Amino acid sequence: MDIFDNAVISQHLSHVRIVMVNTTLPANIGSALRAMKTMGLTKLVLVAPKIYPHPDIDALAAGAADLIEHIEIVDSLENAIKDCHIVFGTSARSRTIPWPLLDARPAAQKSMQAVIQHQQEIAIVFGREDRGLTNEELALANFHVTVPVNSDYGVLNVAQAIQVLCYEMRMATLELADKKLDTEAVMRVTDSEDMHWDEPLVTHEQMEQFYPHIEKMLADIEFLDPKNPRLLPLRLRRLFGRIQLDKMEYHLLRGIFSRVQALNNGTWKKSKDEDQN
Amino acid sequence: MDIFDNAVISQHLSHVRIVMVNTTLPANIGSALRAMKTMGLTKLVLVAPKIYPHPDIDALAAGAADLIEHIEIVDSLENAIKDCHIVFGTSARSRTIPWPLLDARPAAQKSMQAVIQHQQEIAIVFGREDRGLTNEELALANFHVTVPVNSDYGVLNVAQAIQVLCYEMRMATLELADKKLDTEAVMRVTDSEDMHWDEPLVTHEQMEQFYPHIEKMLADIEFLDPKNPRLLPLRLRRLFGRIQLDKMEYHLLRGIFSRVQALNNGTWKKSKDEDQN
Repeated sequence: MDIFDNAVISQHLSHVRIVMVNTTLPANIGSALRAMKTMGLTKLVLVAPKIYPHPDIDALAAGAADLIEHIEIVDSLENAIKDCHIVFGTSARSRTIPWPLLDARPAAQKSMQAVIQHQQEIAIVFGREDRGLTNEELALANFHVTVPVNSDYGVLNVAQAIQVLCYEMRMATLELADKKLDTEAVMRVTDSEDMHWDEPLVTHEQMEQFYPHIEKMLADIEFLDPKNPRLLPLRLRRLFGRIQLDKMEYHLLRGIFSRVQALNNGTWKKSKDEDQN
Repeated sequence: MDIFDNAVISQHLSHVRIVMVNTTLPANIGSALRAMKTMGLTKLVLVAPKIYPHPDIDALAAGAADLIEHIEIVDSLENAIKDCHIVFGTSARSRTIPWPLLDARPAAQKSMQAVIQHQQEIAIVFGREDRGLTNEELALANFHVTVPVNSDYGVLNVAQAIQVLCYEMRMATLELADKKLDTEAVMRVTDSEDMHWDEPLVTHEQMEQFYPHIEKMLADIEFLDPKNPRLLPLRLRRLFGRIQLDKMEYHLLRGIFSRVQALNNGTWKKSKDEDQN
């Protein structure tokens, strides 16, 4: 791998951000920076850290001081991920509602394909030291990601989990870069990431307007009870979160929701002239 | 992965030992134990550690105390590896003498193949914190192994290197075990074969009832003109075709379509009693 390749690898990895939510121990932030730098990642976003700044961060990030300068601090997870296309929430395996769950390796492959082919922005979100991410935070993710550990003992701390994920991101990038250098052509069409796509895909922020709309529409037609929505909102997020809509599809679906709402409240009535799609 | 599988995985990994040579910091021994246990490895051999025992070992090995009891302490690297079939020496890339050098991933694959097919014993040897393994020690290895890191910064400490190697050993074992077991196939999801899913996914045949339903519903509310549907049916197929719905989602969506149709033709009217989701 020569200098030029390394610059390309770093450029790809700059699209992947590590997000740490409500971190308690500054040492874990420092370890995260070191793990990131070792693997070539550069962007760390802290969501409301308990303590910041702190000398332990600098001590454990030894040699990664340049990354400290670029740390971004935000007050909510939404703000950390709003311009991202794919959001991974780190999670132990069992949860109330099953979500698309990937192991670290395929998650990294999916991420770096999305970066290299579509210049997408990726976020990997890590939770609190003691209790991880809340169900609400996990529901903001397109996918959950887990490191397959010894089930008799499986407790990676957050710094270790970040290290494994960063390592897999680097490995996936090296692998894809190798493949590209090889032939440069021959697009595989095994999964959606490899498809040629004509339309830009929507961001997390746009999807945060999508979910309230479909929920409101379903409440209007009394398919969803806003006072007792049960698992429906979560199921909708899981379903549409794993497609990654493109902009045309997004507007198409929102157009359908609006039509149903207009039908329901009487502002639209059947009339053969008003046809449209 | 059930209990039985986990026992098989552990049994395979029991053939892989981690060897630490002249370790200075007890904390690194503790971290190594924790990394090992998380990934299912159990055998640690210390070659003439500077300090042993030490409370830092117990502190950092929290939860891995059973491994401490089985630590083996020897006075020379030769004694640590004498019953091994394949010995890997960890090394930065450039050395005086070129040696067969493998990245962590192929090294782990090679190791676990040797274990599973031939019940061989494997050693991964890690050097001193400050200067690694000597050339004499490296010459005792069959292969050298390295973790491909950011060449601008590449300094994994010994605990981090052990973690990555143990992780790769586990991953290689899972992969090989998967290939062998083959039973109870992991469910394929269109956009990734690697996703875990609990609900059965719908078949192609069921989806062939889904598309006419959504199209009829959209025609009912005049969002789609059956005489001139343009690209809409195709867009719907592309959109829902790349999700692979599970059965619950399938029935949920068809329930919504039916409600919209009933609203449209007047067979369903708003009434707080008829709530459902």
